[in-house]
Amino acid sequence: MSLVDLVLGKRLRTEHEDRERIGAIGGVGVLGLDALASAAYGPEALLTVLLPIGVAAERYVATLTSWIGVLLVIVFLSYRQTIDAYPGGGGAYTVAKENLGTAASVLAAAALALDYLLNVAVAVSAGIGALVSAVPSLLPFTLPLCLGVLLLLTLLNLRGASSTSAAFLVPTYAFVGGMLALIGVGAARALLHGGHPAPVVPPPAPLPAADGAAVSGWLLARAFASGCTAMTGVEAVSNGVPLFREPSTVRARRTLTAIIAVLLALLFGVAGLCRAYRVTATPPGERGYESVLSQLAGAVVGRGVAYHAIIGVMIAVLSLSANTSFADFPRLCRVLAVDRFLPEAFAHRGRRMAFSHGILVLSALSAVLLVIFGGVTAPLIPLFAIGAFLAFTMSQAGMIEHWRRRLRDAERRERRRARRSLVLNAVGTAATAVTLCVVLASKLTEGAWISVLLVAGMVALMRAVRAHYDAIDRAVALGEADALTFEPPRAPICVVPLRRWDAVALKAVNFARGLTADVVAVQVLAENGAIEDLRGRWPQIAEQPAAAAGAPAPRLVVLTSTYRELFEPLLRFVTALSEEHSERVIAVVVPELVERRWYHYLWRNHTASLLKALLLFRGGPRLVVMSTPSYLDLRRGWIRARRPRAR
Amino acid sequence: MSLVDLVLGKRLRTEHEDRERIGAIGGVGVLGLDALASAAYGPEALLTVLLPIGVAAERYVATLTSWIGVLLVIVFLSYRQTIDAYPGGGGAYTVAKENLGTAASVLAAAALALDYLLNVAVAVSAGIGALVSAVPSLLPFTLPLCLGVLLLLTLLNLRGASSTSAAFLVPTYAFVGGMLALIGVGAARALLHGGHPAPVVPPPAPLPAADGAAVSGWLLARAFASGCTAMTGVEAVSNGVPLFREPSTVRARRTLTAIIAVLLALLFGVAGLCRAYRVTATPPGERGYESVLSQLAGAVVGRGVAYHAIIGVMIAVLSLSANTSFADFPRLCRVLAVDRFLPEAFAHRGRRMAFSHGILVLSALSAVLLVIFGGVTAPLIPLFAIGAFLAFTMSQAGMIEHWRRRLRDAERRERRRARRSLVLNAVGTAATAVTLCVVLASKLTEGAWISVLLVAGMVALMRAVRAHYDAIDRAVALGEADALTFEPPRAPICVVPLRRWDAVALKAVNFARGLTADVVAVQVLAENGAIEDLRGRWPQIAEQPAAAAGAPAPRLVVLTSTYRELFEPLLRFVTALSEEHSERVIAVVVPELVERRWYHYLWRNHTASLLKALLLFRGGPRLVVMSTPSYLDLRRGWIRARRPRAR
Repeated sequence: MSLVDLVLGKRLRTEHEDRERIGAIGGVGVLGLDALASAAYGPEALLTVLLPIGVAAERYVATLTSWIGVLLVIVFLSYRQTIDAYPGGGGAYTVAKENLGTAASVLAAAALALDYLLNVAVAVSAGIGALVSAVPSLLPFTLPLCLGVLLLLTLLNLRGASSTSAAFLVPTYAFVGGMLALIGVGAARALLHGGHPAPVVPPPAPLPAADGAAVSGWLLARAFASGCTAMTGVEAVSNGVPLFREPSTVRARRTLTAIIAVLLALLFGVAGLCRAYRVTATPPGERGYESVLSQLAGAVVGRGVAYHAIIGVMIAVLSLSANTSFADFPRLCRVLAVDRFLPEAFAHRGRRMAFSHGILVLSALSAVLLVIFGGVTAPLIPLFAIGAFLAFTMSQAGMIEHWRRRLRDAERRERRRARRSLVLNAVGTAATAVTLCVVLASKLTEGAWISVLLVAGMVALMRAVRAHYDAIDRAVALGEADALTFEPPRAPICVVPLRRWDAVALKAVNFARGLTADVVAVQVLAENGAIEDLRGRWPQIAEQPAAAAGAPAPRLVVLTSTYRELFEPLLRFVTALSEEHSERVIAVVVPELVERRWYHYLWRNHTASLLKALLLFRGGPRLVVMSTPSYLDLRRGWIRARRPRAR
Repeated sequence: MSLVDLVLGKRLRTEHEDRERIGAIGGVGVLGLDALASAAYGPEALLTVLLPIGVAAERYVATLTSWIGVLLVIVFLSYRQTIDAYPGGGGAYTVAKENLGTAASVLAAAALALDYLLNVAVAVSAGIGALVSAVPSLLPFTLPLCLGVLLLLTLLNLRGASSTSAAFLVPTYAFVGGMLALIGVGAARALLHGGHPAPVVPPPAPLPAADGAAVSGWLLARAFASGCTAMTGVEAVSNGVPLFREPSTVRARRTLTAIIAVLLALLFGVAGLCRAYRVTATPPGERGYESVLSQLAGAVVGRGVAYHAIIGVMIAVLSLSANTSFADFPRLCRVLAVDRFLPEAFAHRGRRMAFSHGILVLSALSAVLLVIFGGVTAPLIPLFAIGAFLAFTMSQAGMIEHWRRRLRDAERRERRRARRSLVLNAVGTAATAVTLCVVLASKLTEGAWISVLLVAGMVALMRAVRAHYDAIDRAVALGEADALTFEPPRAPICVVPLRRWDAVALKAVNFARGLTADVVAVQVLAENGAIEDLRGRWPQIAEQPAAAAGAPAPRLVVLTSTYRELFEPLLRFVTALSEEHSERVIAVVVPELVERRWYHYLWRNHTASLLKALLLFRGGPRLVVMSTPSYLDLRRGWIRARRPRAR
């Protein structure tokens, strides 16, 4: 077994693609981590916005969480419908493309792609950030740790979905189990003590309200928008339907339902515990900061083993939640490549049926972000969530159009269902659009304008790629007059660049002579006396043997390079020859010595490769470049040009 | 005038090479800076070793400087002889090669090359180090400043020797003039005040002798060895004789004489002033450190304008003294390349007759050293000077052999001269060999062992390169039986890899059909349904037109890729075809779409290039690879494959 097989897994035959598909339970690990992990930071984001109004915050948490819950349910129902309608993977891109047109779909794709990328960087660095604040001695290794997690995710995903799902099963269910247990124990103690139990470790006292701070609609809207970060990742399942085993839509719906149910339980559970144990946010980045979940865990179970287990699992899940992006980003790239908004390679499945190019590009871009920000991506958070809500909105709006068309064509019995679905998606569109506006308005000055610019740039790039491919298609399209020709062809003129007269050169000239009677050997003298001027020996080498055989002799042209350039005189000679014989093909036969060991490639003379590239770049349509390779076997001391043998 | 012309100068015709040669005065700037600048640090290195014995040092400075002076004169006389004997550039490598054999010459070359490289890094960082200690606000920019000076030197040298000599004339003569003026004024004031004038700014009081420190022979030997760093750079002129205008040996001798005379004056002048003004070294790297030259300048002329002018010129000359390496290292690489210990490219002169490859390699290696050491190369200093003295010794020993041979063959009249020369070189050999031993012994533990390892590594590398070229030569050499063949050849079998049927593919198949009746078009299907399976349309595309023309039709082979690889099935097909037809050439005709703008090169599909490289690497001796380029002109919307026109 080779090293590559060991690290990346054995390559899979295309007909075995089913083996790489996953079930509903595995799906929660592969596609649900992003959504579930957001239960760990969504409530905190909400509470942080409410900090200025002090203890008054307590009154609004439940209401705001309920609104988020309602929005979540709307989005859930809407995506269930999308899964049924687009079993081929109904990401926002596909839905928008089918229903709203190209412009909208490219916009949705750019928004999603940005969101996936930011999610990787932010999730990995948030997890490692939590780790180093728990174990401060690791602080100097923040960036290497981030890159290590990224490498792990990359390798796992290159191995394919089944490996990823197996690896993520334990952390995912440990997180869900731990959180539900915490909420259960906390709720039980609250009930026993009539609503307000004494915390085991009391959370820090809430800060007093800031001077002049008042509860305004705008403040609540901003808190709601921040809390909505808990919803990122919900679209992942509908994008990844083809990952599931058949019947894939059923399994995908099951996975989505499980994720949303657990997420709702976690969100309301956390909100309820916060109320019961009087936990509020602490100002992030200041002394005495403690995450809401850490406060809650301390309040419910103290600082014992259970506390450390819950925090440990949370840290792991935070960094691993980046995986959702690894599952979906490459699939998004694939559909974009199929529609030729990205290069073809993104549609190509690698050795384990994963879209390796997309995985590697996502990994490389995330690594760049992590390195630029030194592993601390907090400045990127305002850029986040805009992409997700833009995609939500586009996807829902597309579904409205989808149902409108259905309504036009459907039979009576179906019409009612379609109408109900349309209303649901309309409510969803309105809700997510309003949320998007709130998020945009509240975060625009914090850096969200960068998101807007990035999305615009990506849209421009994708359209440019598509325009380029379209232009090539038009250029290479065949017309009526283009067909294979069967006239007897005229032999080309062969030009053989020589440096010296050896076995490699001999092979090339012999091959050229087999193609045509017009062979011109060209030697460029760049430095006086550095190489042998072949004019002296040419009669012996070529003219006498040709005369003896009664055949035309190859000509020799020796060019002197005024400026010591090796290629320029040859390129000019070929151009002049081509102009002189305007009806003939000029074939340049490049003698090439190939050394078969990879390390010889490093120090070999790249003259032949460079010459061929220049000929192709500068030559005209009647030019053909040929390589006659001779193979060097240094151990045996001969080259395979002369003694051919079967392999 | 293009940007390249502006920065690097217009390219020069080979026949105008004389224009790039220099005279004796220019030679001091190009080849003498290293030697002259060492007057700025040699005496200080000597005094620093004597620090432990306190004021007692004063008694030994004159004696030690005299010894260095004597050694310098011996080396000078010896190199004068070398210049006459080897007008083609008698570096240590050439002298050793002619007289001591290959092993010795490669050793000398490795020693010199290491010395040149270290000289660049150390000189540049010493100059910038002096600058930032004078202007502390520049400290954060140490590395960028170093790299800036390196870039300047690189560009100047790529422009050729005449540009370099013109640029260096002013700083060189300003340095020499300033130093001589300082020494003159200092000496005059000393004479007026009876030997011990009152310094304008008193130098720091000499440190007391360290406990238990005694004047030992070993201490004096080490001081002598350190002072000998003043001699580095003396060999430069004899290496660079071909740089001079004719009569080049006369001009080279003149330059060498001028350099040595000035250097002796500076060394004795500095030693004398140190004695007169009671200047001693201060411990380097500790608080209160002040360079000996700064103390002297302060003592003689105070801290006025003159002081700052002298220090400023010294800083400039220190960094620019790296230039001697830039003049000689590429010439050393050239002779090594001619003898095939280095790749041929090093023997190739660039647009301005300079050996550009050597310049760029030296610059790149120095940049790596500077970046690794952050622009502070003090840790490299112990590695220094060993190479120089090893080369001195080899060169002198070679000259002994040279004269011995002359003695055997010469007439009576010449014998006397040869005998005198032999004695001189023998004394030189002994002196430099002893110095080398002292330098090695005193610096071995400080890091000089790294020098020894590096030199050994370089020797091994050069011998490996030579062995590789020799092996290739043996392999490609032509025997009696190898000659051009004139039998009527058998047409090749042409394989045309197709992705889809378009104008680019059509051109390739048409070309292949012109070469042979056996054309096989091969299509690889990697992903189901991703590209059109051409079997459906092949009768229409090829078979019907062929039947109509009464010609054999190109075959179509469609390969399905089990593991979604694009190339592997094609490579296996070509190998199998080659084994099946063991007497025929297999020509793979690769259709290629060439986009003429450079930025298209970045995003184009590199499939064709990769396929050609794999075919050449994996194919056998009966394989030929051909490219039929089609040119894309997106503005005009057509490709030049179909509508050829003259350029």
